[in-house]
Amino acid sequence: MRQGNARRRILLKMMHRGRIRHLAQELRRRSIPSLLITHLPDVRYLTGFTGSNAALVVVAEPRLTSRLFTDGRYTVQAKREVQSASVRIAPKSAVVEACIWAEQHASQCGFDRTQTTVATLAAMKKAAGKRGFFVPADGLVAALRVIKDATEVESMRRAASLTCSLYEGLLGWIEPGMRERDIAGELEHRARMAGAESMSFETIVAAGERGSQPHARATEARIQPGDLVTLDFGIVLDGYCSDMTRTFAIGYGEKSVPSRWKQRWAEQRDVFEAVLAAQQAAVNAVHEGASCGEVDLAARSTLEAVGYGKYFTHSTGHGVGLEIHEVPRVGKDSKDVLKAGTVITIEPGVYLPGRFGVRIEDSVLVTEDGAEVLTPVHKGWMEL
Amino acid sequence: MRQGNARRRILLKMMHRGRIRHLAQELRRRSIPSLLITHLPDVRYLTGFTGSNAALVVVAEPRLTSRLFTDGRYTVQAKREVQSASVRIAPKSAVVEACIWAEQHASQCGFDRTQTTVATLAAMKKAAGKRGFFVPADGLVAALRVIKDATEVESMRRAASLTCSLYEGLLGWIEPGMRERDIAGELEHRARMAGAESMSFETIVAAGERGSQPHARATEARIQPGDLVTLDFGIVLDGYCSDMTRTFAIGYGEKSVPSRWKQRWAEQRDVFEAVLAAQQAAVNAVHEGASCGEVDLAARSTLEAVGYGKYFTHSTGHGVGLEIHEVPRVGKDSKDVLKAGTVITIEPGVYLPGRFGVRIEDSVLVTEDGAEVLTPVHKGWMEL
Repeated sequence: MRQGNARRRILLKMMHRGRIRHLAQELRRRSIPSLLITHLPDVRYLTGFTGSNAALVVVAEPRLTSRLFTDGRYTVQAKREVQSASVRIAPKSAVVEACIWAEQHASQCGFDRTQTTVATLAAMKKAAGKRGFFVPADGLVAALRVIKDATEVESMRRAASLTCSLYEGLLGWIEPGMRERDIAGELEHRARMAGAESMSFETIVAAGERGSQPHARATEARIQPGDLVTLDFGIVLDGYCSDMTRTFAIGYGEKSVPSRWKQRWAEQRDVFEAVLAAQQAAVNAVHEGASCGEVDLAARSTLEAVGYGKYFTHSTGHGVGLEIHEVPRVGKDSKDVLKAGTVITIEPGVYLPGRFGVRIEDSVLVTEDGAEVLTPVHKGWMEL
Repeated sequence: MRQGNARRRILLKMMHRGRIRHLAQELRRRSIPSLLITHLPDVRYLTGFTGSNAALVVVAEPRLTSRLFTDGRYTVQAKREVQSASVRIAPKSAVVEACIWAEQHASQCGFDRTQTTVATLAAMKKAAGKRGFFVPADGLVAALRVIKDATEVESMRRAASLTCSLYEGLLGWIEPGMRERDIAGELEHRARMAGAESMSFETIVAAGERGSQPHARATEARIQPGDLVTLDFGIVLDGYCSDMTRTFAIGYGEKSVPSRWKQRWAEQRDVFEAVLAAQQAAVNAVHEGASCGEVDLAARSTLEAVGYGKYFTHSTGHGVGLEIHEVPRVGKDSKDVLKAGTVITIEPGVYLPGRFGVRIEDSVLVTEDGAEVLTPVHKGWMEL
């Protein structure tokens, strides 16, 4: 095990250094002498650092080592985790010291306007002193992160695979009368025990009428026979997020369905099959070079054709990786073009206000000629 | 129950309306005709809305109702949750539509520079069109939130009280040989089952040498006899966060301590008592009118007097409420003055690199003449 860990550390070091090298190349290509990175998932991507406070300066000049600034809580941890940059413990503000250092080692410094508050930019300018030192440079790390490398794909496959087995295990345990919260709690506990670092977002368990709220939190409400239950969850493994949704029916034993339920059952089933068809159409539309707008349209037009279009009130999906929501946005009119190596969710849904809802979601890896579904667990109609 | 819920909704409506009224008064006092609020905990504080996308415009003019913009995922939820503002579902960007509406109803609009990215400000300016329409107005909602009202104090007392009982229950369950992750998983499951909405941050369980990293995540490492274990966790109840840390010793039966452990035991105990004294000194320093710097100094000087000052590598504490980290910062040189009704953490620690660490933390409510400890569960030396 010790030897395995040492080998793993060397691989991680090479990996992080390679990413910083790519970023530095991109900076040279754009004639930006340095880049300040404060968005924590970006910092983690480039250095492996997992602390909650960091500012990283990457310099275009290849002979100069990048530098990570953090605070005294992370002295030991930063030393252990970070091999691709030198580490400085900032007695006061990490970002202020990063700016001072950048100003001493580069003529200009890029920053990401989508990740920097107006107040932080003011503090950065004050620290660096020089007028015109900071120049906008949005999304440079995001552009690297959107294409997952082999190590990342492997982590995401493992996270997705564990997600599927947690789901399958849970199906055998769920019974009518349980509270939404019981189900979320059991799922989260099993996830932890199976090695998940955490959940990738607040678990959604929405039964019956609550399923018509796409983002319902798990409540004290009990699931009832005849309910549809939407379960939307994900875990974090090696820092990478999984994301999957399934909707299933509760308490419809083949013989025990009261006749007054038949109409409800038929309608639920109708909506379900429409969502499933839409989801499959969108998955089929995924391939390198496809626009995200086209993928969204594949789901949307399928639902519109059967009259459910107006009940599909959100986008078809989003990128996923170190963060649960990443670029690209797979939504109406999105011009983003899919690249091989990107992982996105495909999650259309139909929500009948005050009645019930259905959402089906897979995480898929974009490949040259299509999509690899990372969450290939049963998604057809199911009655528990 | 139904009636209780109806009554509760009326109370919440009055509460949120009262908060918006206070904010509008403050806007009039500062001659700011309107305020754009995009920070979600601020939106929740003012309206009760718990969705993940919102932009709220509060107008100074008392006859004009504030307006909340969100997206189609939250049509049902927003209608249910929000009574203190009118709700609009924005087909595209909530913040863009909020700006357009603000521009039609007010001559200027304040925004919080600490909560607005440079990119969002650019989009806001483009949407409103008018030059000089947006004016800086930082921390106005934070200034209201820093003083908890009776309902909030009640929620925070309940969250803290549940935190204490979860801790006590867990003590009877922990045994040497368990993995840090087992302990975190069990704790989180019990929290869910007891009604917590979620954990307020990633649970920290750090045993032995890992305790010297203040922010260690729970890992696969097993707790060993002779280890100190630091457990730092919190839950969310009614949206409010609790935060508590305890450090205890594992596997020192009174008779079974091997003689070679005696020195380690003595040193652990020495550090522990120093941290406990520092924590108590800081709690004793809390009262309305005290500066946060003084409270920090009370802990810091206690540790410096016994030579552990340089191993106390972070601030003494922070505000807590709807967010786990709020103003004020209870740190070195902090000039913030404590107000009655503010809840802060008091959490000094000593971390001997590569050896072990001790942190003890309570959440306390600032009162006119002192502090009410919200987490009064046993914090003295304990051997499990």
